[in-house]
Amino acid sequence: MAVETIRWQGPCPGGHVALIEQTLLPGRAEIAAIHTLAEMIAAIRRLAVRGAPAIGVAAGYGLVLALQELGEAPTERFRERLSSAKAELAAARPTAVNLAWALARTAGKVECMPLDTPSPALLAALFSEAGAIASEDAAQCRRMGELGAELIADGSSVLTHCNAGALATGGIGTALAPIYVAVERGKRVHVWADETRPLLQGARLTAWELSEAGIEVTLITDSMAAACLASGRIDAVFVGSDRIARNGDVCNKIGTYGVAVLARRHAVPFYVVAPLSTFDPDVPDGASIPIEERAPEEVTEGFGPRTAPAGVGVWNPAFDVTPAELVTAIVTERGILEGPDRAKVEALLRDAGRI
Amino acid sequence: MAVETIRWQGPCPGGHVALIEQTLLPGRAEIAAIHTLAEMIAAIRRLAVRGAPAIGVAAGYGLVLALQELGEAPTERFRERLSSAKAELAAARPTAVNLAWALARTAGKVECMPLDTPSPALLAALFSEAGAIASEDAAQCRRMGELGAELIADGSSVLTHCNAGALATGGIGTALAPIYVAVERGKRVHVWADETRPLLQGARLTAWELSEAGIEVTLITDSMAAACLASGRIDAVFVGSDRIARNGDVCNKIGTYGVAVLARRHAVPFYVVAPLSTFDPDVPDGASIPIEERAPEEVTEGFGPRTAPAGVGVWNPAFDVTPAELVTAIVTERGILEGPDRAKVEALLRDAGRI
Repeated sequence: MAVETIRWQGPCPGGHVALIEQTLLPGRAEIAAIHTLAEMIAAIRRLAVRGAPAIGVAAGYGLVLALQELGEAPTERFRERLSSAKAELAAARPTAVNLAWALARTAGKVECMPLDTPSPALLAALFSEAGAIASEDAAQCRRMGELGAELIADGSSVLTHCNAGALATGGIGTALAPIYVAVERGKRVHVWADETRPLLQGARLTAWELSEAGIEVTLITDSMAAACLASGRIDAVFVGSDRIARNGDVCNKIGTYGVAVLARRHAVPFYVVAPLSTFDPDVPDGASIPIEERAPEEVTEGFGPRTAPAGVGVWNPAFDVTPAELVTAIVTERGILEGPDRAKVEALLRDAGRI
Repeated sequence: MAVETIRWQGPCPGGHVALIEQTLLPGRAEIAAIHTLAEMIAAIRRLAVRGAPAIGVAAGYGLVLALQELGEAPTERFRERLSSAKAELAAARPTAVNLAWALARTAGKVECMPLDTPSPALLAALFSEAGAIASEDAAQCRRMGELGAELIADGSSVLTHCNAGALATGGIGTALAPIYVAVERGKRVHVWADETRPLLQGARLTAWELSEAGIEVTLITDSMAAACLASGRIDAVFVGSDRIARNGDVCNKIGTYGVAVLARRHAVPFYVVAPLSTFDPDVPDGASIPIEERAPEEVTEGFGPRTAPAGVGVWNPAFDVTPAELVTAIVTERGILEGPDRAKVEALLRDAGRI
């Protein structure tokens, strides 16, 4: 029911990547056909594909595109090209953790194969690994959706912030996955979407993908979430995460923390939905997470014309941190962590072999 | 130091109104010269002048413009024109309480004068009353500024929401008045301005008027106020109000309530600055205040291109209510009401002869 953000189309070699051209949303929904490494790098750069898990999938397929371009090259030539393509893709969005991770995983699969393996077999292994990243991502999303759907009662209204949906992953999303599954199971769910300034991912992406899926959605500005919660309209909040610290503090799109404080005031549960890969065992707590500050123009000319006086100072942090104590539960593909704290997060990571 | 939003220019009869053409802000700062009633009505309609107190001043001067256009007419003709001009102005923004109040006050001054008073004397009385509204408004703003400035320590950072500044009044504003006075007195004050979606009064107006006055201002999106407060950057919050209930609940621009909740969480004082005329003794509490819901296009195409999918539902309340318990103090021209509640508000209104 959710839109399909990215997929491989056709055989390999010979196929290409089809992805939703997100730069045209919400005005136009077009599928971009990506045939070459250069086209994939350009697509990642212009944010035609975005969202950490979706970028990981794009990166894996990007390597496949680079190497099927070679044709039946000598194995040494193949390995050289793999190495240069990896570097080119890694530079497309240097701060995206999933990009580097997916490149290391797909290329690593080939790098450890016998040196005399012929290039068609290397390409097949690469394609298989890239496909595995995509299908594992989709499976994780579905699993989080199934677990999280239990938290949504029939007839619920759910508030979400930013876009942690199908458009950000190779599956049905993280924060939106429980909603998709709940609706599949016949529950009636109404979604309230914060527009999410400055980049309006809620208005442009979340409202669009939910509408496409036939799910009722009401758009509000970020400043209306407080009144919306106070009015009793919201039964639960679902958000994604960019990074979760070892003590359960949650880093997510700027504005998430404010929603968490308001949810607590109105005794509305605040759920974070994120795969285990989002947890960073090297970060002890939220205060240790570096927060990217972005260009002032996102705030002052975000809608086209300039909407603030020339030369005005701007503070534009891309993320904020919600302390674990405000999080009712974190939904992962390995279960639901209720009342997350350091002990519970560490137990989960230990079980998963992450620490 | 603050900009002058509206003033009478020249003698009466013979003069005109000069006002800052706010529709061009923040891109261009132009003074519109308003010579006729029709021009004043058009200026009010297109929001060239906005903010309850400023509209009151504009309305009084609008009547003066209508009647000086008559020249030395017979007194009966003068009175007829006064009545029709009043009706025309009242229809310019029918829900603006200060508009109706200022019209009743200026016209009332003339209506109770002896029937044989010659029209030049009636015009002089009208002009004098309109001028009194303007100067009383300016004096109230200054008084609130003087009282409120005591709440701002040297070196403070203050957060504000929307525009309750000089651009909204005939003086130095309400919420911004304490800041102007504190700076006049040599205190260093840094202002953080919420952009205030959907109409961006913070970005377009507050950031502009503070910059014009040489006061340091940093613009943030509404969703960044939470992180800003959490970071310890803010020492106090100052906002205005559109209506205050008898129990001290404060109705103000959408988003104010969220800021109040966050201020409380971070133990930052939350001050409301509003003249006594903002208190409504007929409204027992915040829940009884009707909240205007505005057009969805303010959210979906606020600044040109459409930023949400066609047909998406939108909820667009213009105001929210902050319960009195979250208000540290209300600064009025008659003193500061600390920890406002029903008993304190009623005592204030009784002192002022309002109940």
